[in-house]
Amino acid sequence: MQLLRLGPPGRERPAVRADDGVTYDLTPVTTDLTGEFLADDGIARTRDALAAGELQPIVVDGVRIGPPVAGVGKVVCIGLNYRDHAEEIGAAIPAEPVVFLKTPDTIVGPHDEVLVPRRSVKTDWEVELGVVIGRTARYLETAEEALACVAGYVVSHDVSEREFQIERGGQWDKGKNCETFNPLGPCLVPADEVADPQALGLRLWVNGTLRQDSSTGNMIFPVAELVRYLSWFLVLRPGDLVNTGTPAGVALGQPEPKPYLRAGDVVELEIDGLGGQRQVLGQA
Amino acid sequence: MQLLRLGPPGRERPAVRADDGVTYDLTPVTTDLTGEFLADDGIARTRDALAAGELQPIVVDGVRIGPPVAGVGKVVCIGLNYRDHAEEIGAAIPAEPVVFLKTPDTIVGPHDEVLVPRRSVKTDWEVELGVVIGRTARYLETAEEALACVAGYVVSHDVSEREFQIERGGQWDKGKNCETFNPLGPCLVPADEVADPQALGLRLWVNGTLRQDSSTGNMIFPVAELVRYLSWFLVLRPGDLVNTGTPAGVALGQPEPKPYLRAGDVVELEIDGLGGQRQVLGQA
Repeated sequence: MQLLRLGPPGRERPAVRADDGVTYDLTPVTTDLTGEFLADDGIARTRDALAAGELQPIVVDGVRIGPPVAGVGKVVCIGLNYRDHAEEIGAAIPAEPVVFLKTPDTIVGPHDEVLVPRRSVKTDWEVELGVVIGRTARYLETAEEALACVAGYVVSHDVSEREFQIERGGQWDKGKNCETFNPLGPCLVPADEVADPQALGLRLWVNGTLRQDSSTGNMIFPVAELVRYLSWFLVLRPGDLVNTGTPAGVALGQPEPKPYLRAGDVVELEIDGLGGQRQVLGQA
Repeated sequence: MQLLRLGPPGRERPAVRADDGVTYDLTPVTTDLTGEFLADDGIARTRDALAAGELQPIVVDGVRIGPPVAGVGKVVCIGLNYRDHAEEIGAAIPAEPVVFLKTPDTIVGPHDEVLVPRRSVKTDWEVELGVVIGRTARYLETAEEALACVAGYVVSHDVSEREFQIERGGQWDKGKNCETFNPLGPCLVPADEVADPQALGLRLWVNGTLRQDSSTGNMIFPVAELVRYLSWFLVLRPGDLVNTGTPAGVALGQPEPKPYLRAGDVVELEIDGLGGQRQVLGQA
C-alpha cells in the first residue's frame, strides 16, 4: 500500500495505491495526508476502507504527484551517516549523529523542477531514506519505542549547495535551504510494510550515469537509533520528516572538475520498494 | 500599536493594544495573526478598524499572552552578530552572516515556562531582536527592498544548550531546538512604528542580575542587510521569523563556574518599545 497526494501544487488530494496497482481516491477517509491523519490511525483506517471496498478508483495518468505528506512541521537531517560518504569528502566518522535542519517549504513533489540557485556553482545531489513520524517522540529510551514512532518511509532528495554550505562561514543550513531543495515522494509506504528499513538499496543517476549505489544497511546510525537520539534534543511530532543521510557518490566527492548540477541536467533516484523521482534542473 | 495573541496555548485570539493602552478584540478583522494576515495588509486594516471605532475593548488581566505570530513557517537565526558577543566566546568576527535554524514548534509565549532539557548542564540565555516577515523576500538587491519585507519587530529569546550546540559534534542546531527554546513576544510592533531598528536598547536579567545590556546599534550586520543577505540562500515568507543575534553577557561568556540556567531560575528580558518577557525555568 502506498499513500500519495495528487494534483497541482497546493491543491493535492490524498490517494492510495493498493497492492494490485489500482489507485483510489482517499478523500472519504481524510482531506489530506497530514501529521494529524498519521497520528489518528489514518493508515489503519485507509486499510479498512480499502478492504471494505469503500474507495473509488481514480485515473492517475498525467496527474502531477505531490509530496506525500502535507504540513510537514520540521525536516531534521543527518549528516555523514554513511562511512563511504564521510570518507569521500574527507570528513571524520562521527561519534554521534550530526544534525542539521531544512525548512519545510523546501519540499516539492518528486518530479517537480529543482532550481539551481542564483550565483550557485556547486549544486549537488543526495539520495536519502526519509522517515515520516507518526507519533510524538520525546526522550525515548529504546529502539523499539523509536520505531513505534515511525509512520512510514519515503524517498527524499537532500539537494545541497556546497559553496553555500561549507565555504560561506558558519553552519551547513546556509546551503541546504534554497527553494525546491527537498523533492519528496512519490509515496509514503507504511512502516509495517517495510520488512527491514536497514536493507533497502538506494541509487541515483545524473544524466543517465549511476552516481550513488548503496544500501541503507551501510548507515552508521540506523533509523531506530536516529529517532531515539534525536528525541533527546528536540521533539519529533507527527508529520515531521527525518532525512537519514546519503551514501558516497555526490559531486563533492568526485575528482576535479566536480560534476555539479546545471540547468538542464536530469537527476533520477530510487529506493527499493519506495519508488523513484526524476527532476529536470532549472535556473532560479 | 501592538498586536497580541491572548488565551491558552493553541487557542489564542488576536488583539490589539492601542496607543492609549486599551486592548481591543481583533477578531472582527482576523481570526489570527498569521503570515497571511500580515501579507494581506492586516496591519493597515487593524489601524482602520481602530480609527473607525469598530473594535470592542477586552479585559486582559490574568489572561495568558501567547506568541504574537501564529503559524510561523521558519525561524532563521543569525549567530555572532554582535562584536562583543563573538569576542566573549572567542569566536572570529564573521565576514558574512552566520546562519542557523530553529524549528517553529520551539516558540512559546513570552511568560511561559522554559524547560531545562534532560541531561542538560549548559542551558543559556540570549536576548534578541526578532524580525517578522510580511512580504516574500527572494533574491533582493537593496536594503530598501529588504525593509519593505519586514512586517514588524518582536522580543525573541533564543534559548541555547551549549554542550548540545558545541560539544556534541556537527552543527549548532542540536543545541537550539529543545522544546520551549524560543519564547516570543509579548507583542508585534509594526515596522513603521519603530523609528530605527538599529537604535533599540536590549537587556536581560537572570534572578535579578543584569547580564546583557546593549543596543541593536551594535549589530555587525543590520536588519536590512540580514534580510537582503538571507534572501539569496532561502525564501523568506510572510510569518517567518528572523532572530538577529545576541550581544555579550551570555553564560557561555562568563568566567568559570559559568552560571548556566537551572530549574527555578528567573529570566527577564526587554527591548525598548517592544515590551518584556519573564520566564521561570522548569525541568523537562
